[in-house]
Amino acid sequence: MAALARSVLVTGSNRGIGLELVRQLAASPRPPQHIFATCRDPEGPRGKALQELAAQHPSIKLVQLDAVNLPSIRGAVRAVGSHLKDQGLNLLINNAGVSSHATLRSLDSREMLSAFATNVVGPVQVTKEFLPLLEKAAKGVGKEGLSCSRAAVINISTKLGSIGLCLKVPEAPMYPYRASKAAQNMVTRCMAAELQDKGILCVAIHPGWVKTDMGTEKAPLMVEHSVQGILTVLANLSQDTSGAFLDWEGNTLPW
Amino acid sequence: MAALARSVLVTGSNRGIGLELVRQLAASPRPPQHIFATCRDPEGPRGKALQELAAQHPSIKLVQLDAVNLPSIRGAVRAVGSHLKDQGLNLLINNAGVSSHATLRSLDSREMLSAFATNVVGPVQVTKEFLPLLEKAAKGVGKEGLSCSRAAVINISTKLGSIGLCLKVPEAPMYPYRASKAAQNMVTRCMAAELQDKGILCVAIHPGWVKTDMGTEKAPLMVEHSVQGILTVLANLSQDTSGAFLDWEGNTLPW
Repeated sequence: MAALARSVLVTGSNRGIGLELVRQLAASPRPPQHIFATCRDPEGPRGKALQELAAQHPSIKLVQLDAVNLPSIRGAVRAVGSHLKDQGLNLLINNAGVSSHATLRSLDSREMLSAFATNVVGPVQVTKEFLPLLEKAAKGVGKEGLSCSRAAVINISTKLGSIGLCLKVPEAPMYPYRASKAAQNMVTRCMAAELQDKGILCVAIHPGWVKTDMGTEKAPLMVEHSVQGILTVLANLSQDTSGAFLDWEGNTLPW
Repeated sequence: MAALARSVLVTGSNRGIGLELVRQLAASPRPPQHIFATCRDPEGPRGKALQELAAQHPSIKLVQLDAVNLPSIRGAVRAVGSHLKDQGLNLLINNAGVSSHATLRSLDSREMLSAFATNVVGPVQVTKEFLPLLEKAAKGVGKEGLSCSRAAVINISTKLGSIGLCLKVPEAPMYPYRASKAAQNMVTRCMAAELQDKGILCVAIHPGWVKTDMGTEKAPLMVEHSVQGILTVLANLSQDTSGAFLDWEGNTLPW
């Protein structure tokens, strides 16, 4: 099996789904040549698991990236570009995000704006700034159609961001989280429409309800299984699925 | 025909669709007893058309309300409460909003956050603060089921906020506007789920592409026709349509 992509960047990779994505990519039989594992403070105490993982796999490069801080994003673009030299970035996985359990009665405007900043504006800014590197990859020799091995933006979304499923979901209302993820889904769809002619695929992925710091211990799904599923789905994406909202098993979800 | 509601509040009512809603409500054969026409500066030069309209209709009360300013919202709640005395507010129409034409390449984070603040956080905060008055109206004697004459929140949305239709819409990407309106649709759906047991109906309405300052002269639809349609749709809302996304002719739109 060919590598999923020659180069991959994952945001929020110091824990949870992001860390597991980096772990499984690095341990795969045909790993990417460059795995850019980014988070806000990769050298600090919250990056410890990532540091240990990087020590075992030379393909993993730790890169500082705070998705709500434009100078930080631009610094990451420069660092990634210097590693890639004259090649582009094939696969950008916007995984960093925050949850919020507010109801209509408990929410406040700052919490809601903060969810929009991290879950929507962050991925948009990161994608915008990495666009030249993605476009360079998309122009790579011998590649046609859309795929993660050519050039792709994957936005980690959630079933709770499905407006159509909303009334069927029994959990608490979670207005800021749900509203920001619905907005992120719209962004994915707009990006898919805007970037397909550039050879860049865009998809939203629901990773399942996963046992992580965000998903809590109550979640039914192990992070290893979720990420195995996500990587299988990514390997099979094509022109036909660009702009889709898929779960970790490849099922289409309603908007 | 019975009045649509005993009391109605419209945000952003100094121009466009908001102004026309106030005009048609006041001029209807059975007008609401109280029409609270709100905007950021009802006494200033941008409130001139509204002032002239209010001078002709004693049912219209001008109320200062800036939907992104919590003290302003709370001041409006007090003003409206003192007019209503021991009765609640039946119908809240969250109409105030901003557009934005940014593409992925041209957008900046401040513009995008500002769209979220005005188009999502604003309506949520306004609804949250007016909830006690809406709940009071919902408990009004002799009313069962859900309707605008009992208690309702109407969020003025847009077809451009439909994620499902996104790829078919030929206009410019408009990321901040579309993403914020998709988020607002999610909020409408969450509110419908949370408030139905309180007797409060919530619906998102697409007014059509209307000739207004926001819609521009290129728009095919006259604001009078759009608002006639909206008011007919509102009069026919019920339990069955709470949580729906409808256009000004009553057609259901995909999320």
